[in-house]
Amino acid sequence: MGVVVRFEEARDPKQGLQPLLDLVRDDMEGINRLILDRAVSDVEMIPELAHHLIDSGGKRLRPMLTLATAKMTGFEGNEHIRVAAAVEFMHTATLLHDDVVDESDYRRGKLAARTIWGNQASVLVGDFLLGQAFRMLVDVGNLQVLRILSNAAAVIAEGEVMQLSAAKNLATTEDEYLSIVNAKTAALFLGAAESGAALAERPAEELAALRSYGKNLGIAFQLIDDALDYSGDSKNLGKAVGDDFREGKVTLPVILAFRRGNQEERYFWSRTIGDGKIEDGDLERAVSLIQQHGAIEATVDRAKSYGTIAWDAMEIFSGSPQKEALQAVIGFCISRAH
Amino acid sequence: MGVVVRFEEARDPKQGLQPLLDLVRDDMEGINRLILDRAVSDVEMIPELAHHLIDSGGKRLRPMLTLATAKMTGFEGNEHIRVAAAVEFMHTATLLHDDVVDESDYRRGKLAARTIWGNQASVLVGDFLLGQAFRMLVDVGNLQVLRILSNAAAVIAEGEVMQLSAAKNLATTEDEYLSIVNAKTAALFLGAAESGAALAERPAEELAALRSYGKNLGIAFQLIDDALDYSGDSKNLGKAVGDDFREGKVTLPVILAFRRGNQEERYFWSRTIGDGKIEDGDLERAVSLIQQHGAIEATVDRAKSYGTIAWDAMEIFSGSPQKEALQAVIGFCISRAH
Repeated sequence: MGVVVRFEEARDPKQGLQPLLDLVRDDMEGINRLILDRAVSDVEMIPELAHHLIDSGGKRLRPMLTLATAKMTGFEGNEHIRVAAAVEFMHTATLLHDDVVDESDYRRGKLAARTIWGNQASVLVGDFLLGQAFRMLVDVGNLQVLRILSNAAAVIAEGEVMQLSAAKNLATTEDEYLSIVNAKTAALFLGAAESGAALAERPAEELAALRSYGKNLGIAFQLIDDALDYSGDSKNLGKAVGDDFREGKVTLPVILAFRRGNQEERYFWSRTIGDGKIEDGDLERAVSLIQQHGAIEATVDRAKSYGTIAWDAMEIFSGSPQKEALQAVIGFCISRAH
Repeated sequence: MGVVVRFEEARDPKQGLQPLLDLVRDDMEGINRLILDRAVSDVEMIPELAHHLIDSGGKRLRPMLTLATAKMTGFEGNEHIRVAAAVEFMHTATLLHDDVVDESDYRRGKLAARTIWGNQASVLVGDFLLGQAFRMLVDVGNLQVLRILSNAAAVIAEGEVMQLSAAKNLATTEDEYLSIVNAKTAALFLGAAESGAALAERPAEELAALRSYGKNLGIAFQLIDDALDYSGDSKNLGKAVGDDFREGKVTLPVILAFRRGNQEERYFWSRTIGDGKIEDGDLERAVSLIQQHGAIEATVDRAKSYGTIAWDAMEIFSGSPQKEALQAVIGFCISRAH
């Protein structure tokens, strides 16, 4: 049960993220400058909208993975900062398009960009940021990194389309859900982590280890996110409990509660998630059914399993502050649920 | 007046495009196979939507530019086919997002993808195609080509945002309009033409010549497109006359008619384009005002000037069937208006 103990140790959210934050602090300042610099345009709306997103208090977890894996694998140049900024731009572009697709009014507790500037600007500024991300990667000029992250861009979009196709479909299996999570979330964690070692031109097994770390960390992150949507505290999360419910997203807590539920409960899920007919009190009933069937616990347990895989994937690397920080982040991602 | 004569000779639309079509026929089959291949995904909606667009009868002008410039500058490999397919994917992604932003119901006389599959799928499949475009370019592995086309991607998006900001604004000057056209349309023509010579690793002056050719051809193309929106034949164009009017786009025919008009006419433009209050008979009045002030002729004349610049830019290349075909295309683009 060693791993569980390690998660327990890392359960304090601040402690879990703190080692990584401390290690990459200087590089993150470089990223912030680069982001502001590359969000510049003569077209006023672009920097306005970009700054809204950039200042909105995201954790910047993905670019931190690139910075830490580059340093851990001995990269000595400065290009990891540009690659990490490109990763953050890719993520930001995805958020902009996601909010349009999900018709979300809020993002991290602030008005979503589309609420202020409209869907049209959100689509186009997302495209611009993606274009800028590729420009930055081309400037770095490492074809391996370009391959990893252009791959991620296509797979993320594919995952979002899969999610759209699965929306409102209660027949979605846990495996299908996992394919979506793999594509829409884990692909960028994977790309961010692998890019660091690709920059350092490390051998294939180290790249594979970081792919495994990134992918499984990403899955754990998304599972916890989905659990929080039925159990979280909207003030701390910046997202409202029940967003997924109102959007008809078939996430793991729903998949489990639906499958574990009786006929009458399944009818409830079909009416609400399936047909989108949501009445007063339905969210409370959904939360209560999910609790009753232990679906949050089961989701968190699965997240821990993926976290364990991510942890073990890192074990081929010899001890370093970066390795420890990257492992501690797993605990941070999972402990968000407590 | 030699150039005018050359345009006159090339004025038959079929003759103007035919030499290029003949030259690149075999390569275009390769592109079609590659496009079908790269639009494949386990996510059903992606190939469905992609095929809808791919089969919708576009001219594939942009990828043909890449094929012809590569051959003209002596490129002997096969990678020009992948680069050209990537150019077409970038263009297709832009069309998908454009239709969402413009709220267009039709594209080339067929239902727009967003009308069939919805805005959400159009945004996401556009993202997927853009990701696939970059993947193909990374496979080719030419950093210069990657730089040219990632640049184009960011500039195109910037141009679309500029266009959105200028919508309904009758104070837009011809110069501002031209900046938009340069970014949203000419940038991809430029990138498509330059990429061919970049593949062939030609010296800077040849790349510069093809940039100039592509940019000015793209401007001429867009000016004629904008003229056709107030003078064309919707059956042949696949777009309805008046789309730009209804969307409040401030294009050159409107800019000229507004500036050349009297107080009462300017009030008309403010009510319709500016405030979007369009009544029965307004489109007819707009077309008539534009005719009356010679705004279509003036737009076509300007297109011819840009066409001349494109023609002359090609003159540094020694004679070849490709050079002749690329020059004949200028006539095709301009003669669409007759």
